[in-house]
Amino acid sequence: MTVFFNKVAIIGVGLIGGSLAKVMKAQMLAGEIIGAGRRRESLEQALQLGVIDRSAVNPASAVDWADLVVLATPVGTFETLVREIAPHLKKGAIVTDVGSVKGSLVKAIEALLPAGVSFVPGHPIAGRERHGVTEATEVLFQGARCILTPTKRTDRRAMDVVQSLWTAAGATVVEMDPDMHDHVFAAVSHLPHVAAYAMMCSVAELGAGSEQYLNFSGAGFRDFTRIVASSPEMWRDICLKNAKNVVDMIDRYQSSLSCIKKAIHRGDAKKLELLFRQASDVRRGMQ
Amino acid sequence: MTVFFNKVAIIGVGLIGGSLAKVMKAQMLAGEIIGAGRRRESLEQALQLGVIDRSAVNPASAVDWADLVVLATPVGTFETLVREIAPHLKKGAIVTDVGSVKGSLVKAIEALLPAGVSFVPGHPIAGRERHGVTEATEVLFQGARCILTPTKRTDRRAMDVVQSLWTAAGATVVEMDPDMHDHVFAAVSHLPHVAAYAMMCSVAELGAGSEQYLNFSGAGFRDFTRIVASSPEMWRDICLKNAKNVVDMIDRYQSSLSCIKKAIHRGDAKKLELLFRQASDVRRGMQ
Repeated sequence: MTVFFNKVAIIGVGLIGGSLAKVMKAQMLAGEIIGAGRRRESLEQALQLGVIDRSAVNPASAVDWADLVVLATPVGTFETLVREIAPHLKKGAIVTDVGSVKGSLVKAIEALLPAGVSFVPGHPIAGRERHGVTEATEVLFQGARCILTPTKRTDRRAMDVVQSLWTAAGATVVEMDPDMHDHVFAAVSHLPHVAAYAMMCSVAELGAGSEQYLNFSGAGFRDFTRIVASSPEMWRDICLKNAKNVVDMIDRYQSSLSCIKKAIHRGDAKKLELLFRQASDVRRGMQ
Repeated sequence: MTVFFNKVAIIGVGLIGGSLAKVMKAQMLAGEIIGAGRRRESLEQALQLGVIDRSAVNPASAVDWADLVVLATPVGTFETLVREIAPHLKKGAIVTDVGSVKGSLVKAIEALLPAGVSFVPGHPIAGRERHGVTEATEVLFQGARCILTPTKRTDRRAMDVVQSLWTAAGATVVEMDPDMHDHVFAAVSHLPHVAAYAMMCSVAELGAGSEQYLNFSGAGFRDFTRIVASSPEMWRDICLKNAKNVVDMIDRYQSSLSCIKKAIHRGDAKKLELLFRQASDVRRGMQ
């Protein structure tokens, strides 16, 4: 199925929103792409780079007559944003998002949208440590997965349209329950980010001389903390919107750390090797 | 300064020991290289690959008449090993190691070695997630740093010899106090490994279905846990030999995690963003 939208509104023209716009430009899937967002500078850049055709002064005017609206701002802004645009959405419009949190956020958005507007919740797994529209590229989603988390209220036709868009972007679309999504991503994405932020904090707190420590960091530390360069604002929102799952995973993580710490403290070589070996085996099975 | 050793004994012919042997072969820095180690299979492989010239049945016979002895087994074996080889070391022999822990381990080794034998403690920063002699390569140390941690008992001439060997391997040699070394590496290397092992444990403990979770892991999780594939035995020993510093860093890390967890739990967006932003700024400063 090939899709074409007369008018697309992208709210939040950063790495993800900008890359999706570029895909639609490159494949001529949109008649016109309007960008909106809080940072005027980003919009100016997006215009100069040809990522969008026009910028709107506010989200409400951007969505006017739009067939497709993409929410690509930090997830913490979604509810306010949807309240703002809801009265201006045309009948038959499809709203989708690229947020890393689904679950109750999806239900909240559904409740705010008027009848006749379809919402298709999405989450492309294509983050990067760099962010901003200058990093946007039409190949960002190639080979990536995009998760769609329909609910019983989701319109199937709209689902198909959004699925076709992501397929055109080169992504493999996977369907998942919204709550399951938040469980899974708390474990494999949100926790690693929190863990990496915490690690940078711990080393920075060593105080004067910690720069010298960092000079000696090997590939492990660098790999481990690369994701810390991601947008702090975006990750703040993700953690707060998926708070219950993230807190639960931090608790589990702290238990695992305590378990290892105890084995080290007691000099329990057998236990320590067992813990490390199990972890190592699971990791090797991943590839 | 160019170095040449008539006979070199490498105890532990894995990734690091094997790579150093390959450097000496490639640059003809050794008349003969004898390998010793616990795994007969590894020694057979090392022989077949031409990494060593001969294998010895035990470390004591390997060091007989050796000018240079390299300890490249897990650090937990060093003291037993040095006790075993000490009576067989020739006068004037240089003993060096490639262990990731220095501090009190260096003092223990110094105390076990006979007069007339020089010990130069070393630590090349060149780990990899793959291990074993089949991964050994003469380019492993190129562009890497090798830390030497002399004490007041270290012979300067022997220091120069070992320094020349690492320089020939393409490494940049840095001198550091042994205790300082263990502080620094607990922070930038040992803690990240513990953190990654703990993370794999937490996800694996989610139980049945955790494989499915891992299917959705993005680049962050993969980067974060890559080091978990390192040798469990090696990391067990490192943690136990640097226990005080590692436990202290785990404590600091858990405090940072608790601090983030509290902010998420309370919905304190300001605090959370501040924590993430500080971490992000430090990371960006690193490159």
